[in-house]
Amino acid sequence: MSPKAICLLSGGLDSATTLYAAKAKGYEVRALTIHYGQLHERELECAKKLAQGVAIEHQVMALSLPWKGSALLDASIPVPTGRSDQEMAHGIPVTYVPARNTIFLAVAASYAEASGSAILLIGANILDYSGYPDCRPEYFKSLEETLRLGTKAGAEGRRLSIEAPLLKLSKKEIIEWGMRLGVPYDKTWSCYQGQKAPCGACDACQLRAKGFREAGHEDPLLNYEKSSH
Amino acid sequence: MSPKAICLLSGGLDSATTLYAAKAKGYEVRALTIHYGQLHERELECAKKLAQGVAIEHQVMALSLPWKGSALLDASIPVPTGRSDQEMAHGIPVTYVPARNTIFLAVAASYAEASGSAILLIGANILDYSGYPDCRPEYFKSLEETLRLGTKAGAEGRRLSIEAPLLKLSKKEIIEWGMRLGVPYDKTWSCYQGQKAPCGACDACQLRAKGFREAGHEDPLLNYEKSSH
Repeated sequence: MSPKAICLLSGGLDSATTLYAAKAKGYEVRALTIHYGQLHERELECAKKLAQGVAIEHQVMALSLPWKGSALLDASIPVPTGRSDQEMAHGIPVTYVPARNTIFLAVAASYAEASGSAILLIGANILDYSGYPDCRPEYFKSLEETLRLGTKAGAEGRRLSIEAPLLKLSKKEIIEWGMRLGVPYDKTWSCYQGQKAPCGACDACQLRAKGFREAGHEDPLLNYEKSSH
Repeated sequence: MSPKAICLLSGGLDSATTLYAAKAKGYEVRALTIHYGQLHERELECAKKLAQGVAIEHQVMALSLPWKGSALLDASIPVPTGRSDQEMAHGIPVTYVPARNTIFLAVAASYAEASGSAILLIGANILDYSGYPDCRPEYFKSLEETLRLGTKAGAEGRRLSIEAPLLKLSKKEIIEWGMRLGVPYDKTWSCYQGQKAPCGACDACQLRAKGFREAGHEDPLLNYEKSSH
């Protein structure tokens, strides 16, 4: 019997690759998209297309955090653009959303309990986003223990485990792996801005472009955008 | 300077008492109500009145868990009624909502970070609800550690602590304390059913009635309901 898993699917490059990696591992995957009041809906559309593409159950949950405090939630804080690799690697970025991964993984745990799943998949990555405290391995370990203690599944001896298969991969390695797995990267969205085409300047666009460049592939999203104009 | 705290406020007797206890302790309290798709809106109305009554900032967040698996979310599972104290004390009740307190406290942590608060207050109680794994002290301890590791506040040395002041009190003791604190119990709702008056038969109604009886007080909600007919 295939292990059942819940995959957090934002519609970005990393979560799409995580989904395909889990499918390749033989997991029976359900996807969960939490629409938490990002400034744009492009990722949400991508998440829906990705889940449809692999024909899996997909739950989309609206969770509007009414407080601000992150450039991803608050239009008055500019998203960072044009920073050097070194600047990106230090400190907690303004795109940090308070307690986001804990909220996401708690909701995924709820879905896991309701569907009898044992694995929570998250596309977290520690190289590109070293500043996010909720991407660190010791944080995931601690949350697993919290879920063991605080869920019915845990109380009954069915532990929920958190898997972050991309955690220590570079963007280049993620893209190389994803290309082998057949991830349709034209159906993923990374840009922090919500325009028709990626801005090319924000941290997320820069990391994505660098990854494709180093992996020796063209980004199919850019080709797609070009050909649709 | 008063410590800042976020109080999870469902609109029930326990969370109302927790709010008043925190105010009495001198905390600068903000209230957070998570409307997660319970079957009725009576508690939500009560939460709003309670927060207005003490004139504090109050955030209401809709978070509809699209999966079922609890009598509190799923109309097809009957809420338990007429059980003995002993039956109530054993096993995980059908009213357990998968990972609920972890979701709630993660959202409260997010609000705490955004508002510079250090304390998360929850009206959890281990005597009446001994079956809920997410009401156990070791669970709260573990979640504090997870939040220390996984939040910006924690990474910067400002630990978020979880306080559950009612954890080991009986319903009688909670009500006695609340009456001294002046909690307006006519503005609290406990019944699992969403009718105009409390059903009197579900676990929550039974526990409440027993608590008031043992504390030697009349439940002002019942007086209020009587006088308004």
